[in-house]
Amino acid sequence: MKSFAIHPVDQTIKPSILAKIDNLNKPKGSLGRLEELALQICLIQQTLEPSLAHPCHLLLGGDHGIEREGVSVSPREVTWQQMINFTHGGGGVNMFCRQHGFKLRIVDVGVDYDLSGIDGIIDRKIARGTKNFLYEPAMSEAEFDRAIQIGSDLVEDCVAEGCRVLSIGEMGIANTSPSSIWMHLFTGVPLQECIGAGAGLDTPGIRHKYEVLSKALLNYQVTTPNQAPITPLAYFGGYEMVAAIGAMLKAAEKHLVILIDGFIMTACALAAIQLYPAAQDYMIFTHCGDESGHKRMLDAMGANALLHLGLRLGEGTGALCAFPIVDSAVRMMNEMNNFENANITKYF
Amino acid sequence: MKSFAIHPVDQTIKPSILAKIDNLNKPKGSLGRLEELALQICLIQQTLEPSLAHPCHLLLGGDHGIEREGVSVSPREVTWQQMINFTHGGGGVNMFCRQHGFKLRIVDVGVDYDLSGIDGIIDRKIARGTKNFLYEPAMSEAEFDRAIQIGSDLVEDCVAEGCRVLSIGEMGIANTSPSSIWMHLFTGVPLQECIGAGAGLDTPGIRHKYEVLSKALLNYQVTTPNQAPITPLAYFGGYEMVAAIGAMLKAAEKHLVILIDGFIMTACALAAIQLYPAAQDYMIFTHCGDESGHKRMLDAMGANALLHLGLRLGEGTGALCAFPIVDSAVRMMNEMNNFENANITKYF
Repeated sequence: MKSFAIHPVDQTIKPSILAKIDNLNKPKGSLGRLEELALQICLIQQTLEPSLAHPCHLLLGGDHGIEREGVSVSPREVTWQQMINFTHGGGGVNMFCRQHGFKLRIVDVGVDYDLSGIDGIIDRKIARGTKNFLYEPAMSEAEFDRAIQIGSDLVEDCVAEGCRVLSIGEMGIANTSPSSIWMHLFTGVPLQECIGAGAGLDTPGIRHKYEVLSKALLNYQVTTPNQAPITPLAYFGGYEMVAAIGAMLKAAEKHLVILIDGFIMTACALAAIQLYPAAQDYMIFTHCGDESGHKRMLDAMGANALLHLGLRLGEGTGALCAFPIVDSAVRMMNEMNNFENANITKYF
Repeated sequence: MKSFAIHPVDQTIKPSILAKIDNLNKPKGSLGRLEELALQICLIQQTLEPSLAHPCHLLLGGDHGIEREGVSVSPREVTWQQMINFTHGGGGVNMFCRQHGFKLRIVDVGVDYDLSGIDGIIDRKIARGTKNFLYEPAMSEAEFDRAIQIGSDLVEDCVAEGCRVLSIGEMGIANTSPSSIWMHLFTGVPLQECIGAGAGLDTPGIRHKYEVLSKALLNYQVTTPNQAPITPLAYFGGYEMVAAIGAMLKAAEKHLVILIDGFIMTACALAAIQLYPAAQDYMIFTHCGDESGHKRMLDAMGANALLHLGLRLGEGTGALCAFPIVDSAVRMMNEMNNFENANITKYF
C-alpha cells in the first residue's frame, strides 16, 4: 500500500485559537459544539481564519460478494440502479449536495454492472463486485492497493480545485456486513453486538447475518495461516470502502476537513485510523444513526457525533446534512465581532 | 388580549403525505427525523409540496426589572449594547441569518435605553424595561395586550412579504428568571429544578436566584388576591417574551412553520400553548441546550429537539442553526425522485 504523510495537528497555535474564540462577543463557551468545531478546524488548517472552500462529496459505489448469502434485504441490482439514479439528480445525496454547494463525484469503484460510458459516473471499476468473503478474500492485496490509490487520487483532484472540506458517501448493497466485521476486529466488541438491521432486516434476518459473518470470520482465521497473510481490510472490505479509506488518508495528509457519517463510513474511518492513528485529528463525526453498534464504534474512537437524526440512507447524507453546522463554526471565526470592535461590556 | 384563530392542523391530508414520503426512492423511514419534519410541515401548510420561502427572524429585545436583584451575571447594559451590535452585523444572530438567508428584524420592545432613531432597530418600545416582579407586576394587563399585538403585527409584516417560516430570538439580560417561573407554573416542576445557570451563574449565584424567585412567587400569590387578577404571563413576563408569544400565536394562525429554540423561547412557546394548545402543531423545537430544565420543559410538551449543540447564546441562534435541516426535509418532498420515475427496484 502507498504511504501517506499524516501527522497529528500541530497544537502550537491552539492558545491563539482559543483566545480568539473567547474574545468573540458572546458569553464564553456559549456557542457550544460550534466552538469545539472551530478549534478543530483551525487546528487542521493551522489558521485563525479557516475556510471550507469548494466542498466536495465523493459517492463511491461497489458491490459485495457476501450479498449472495442473503445478508441484506435489498438485492444487489439496487447498487447500479441507484448509481444511475444519482446521475439524474434525484437521490438523497443529490439534493443535499445542491443544497450545500458540494461538488458531487459519483465513482464506480466496483459495481456489478457495466456503467462505463454513462455520463456523470467516473469509471474506476476494479471488478464487478468483490468475491464472497464467506469462502475467500473479498479482494487481493493488489486490488486493495489499487482501491486505496483510487480514493487518494480522487482527493488529489478535489484538492487541485481548491477543496478544503471533503465528505464521503457510499452505495453498496450489503456493505454493513464488512463494516460489522471490521468493527468487531478493531474494537473487540463481540460480533453479535456489531450487527444491526442494515437497511431493514428483521430478527431472523439479523440472526442469519450473524451466522454468515461468524462463519466467515472462522474461515478467515482458519485459512489465512495457510496462505500469504492478508489483512482484514482486504479480506472483508468492499472496493468502495477501501477507496474511502484511501480518500480519508489522502485528505488527512492534505489537511482537509473530513466529514464522516454513518455506520459504514465510520467503520472505514476506524480502519483508516488503524493504519494512521493521526488521521482522526482531521475527522468530524457528523451523524450517529440508530444502526446497532454505530455509537459503540464512535465511543471506541472517543468521538461524539454532531447530529442524531435517525438517518440510515447512506450516500453520505448525514455528513451533508451536518455541513451547515460546521460552516456556522467557521463563520463564527471569520464573521463574528469581538468585544473590542463591538464596544460591548464583556459578559459571561 | 386579542384573539387568534388557531386550529389544530387538519389531518385529512396525512395519508397522502405519508404515501408520498414512503414512495421516495429510499428505504422506508431511512431519512429519520427529516421524514417527521416533512410530515409536520406538509400538515401545517396542507400541501404535498411545502415551501420555506422568505424566512424571517425576529430578534426581540427587552429589559427586566428583576435584573436589579442580581439574578444575572451580566449587567443590563449588555441588552442595549448588543441591540446596537446587531445593527452592525457582528452578532451570532447576524452571521446565521446571513448564512441561511433569513431577513432579520431587530425590534426594541422594551430595552432600557434610548434606541430611537438607530438605523436597523424597529422601535416598538413599551417602556424602558419591565418593573421588578419581586415587588409588583412586571407589566400591566394593558401593556401585556400591547406586547402581544406588537408580536402579532410583526408577523403580519412577515407574511405580507411571503414568509412561510419564522424563527424568533431574544436579547434581554435576566430573562431566564421569568422563564424559570413560567416553567414552574405551567409544568409543575419544582422551582428549584427550573433554575439553571443562565449565562454563567455559579452555585451561590444560582442559590440567590432561587431565593429571589421563590420570594417573588410568594409575593405574587399573596398580593394578587388583593388586586385585580393578573395572569403570571403579565406579572412575570418580559416585553420581548410576551411579544414572542404574540408572534407565535399569529404565526400559528397564519400556518407558518415556527422554529423555537432555547430555554427562553421554549418558555414562551409553553406560555403560548397555555393560551392556544393547538399552536404547538406549528412549532418545531430546534435545539435543546444544557440549561437545567430545558429538556424537562420540552418533555412536558412531548417535544424532542432536533439539535443538541450545547448552545446558550440566545438570540434564536439555535433555531437558525437548525434551519438547513428543516430545509432538507422540505427539499426531500420537492426534489427527491420516487421509485417510479427513478426506475429503481423498491428497496427497504
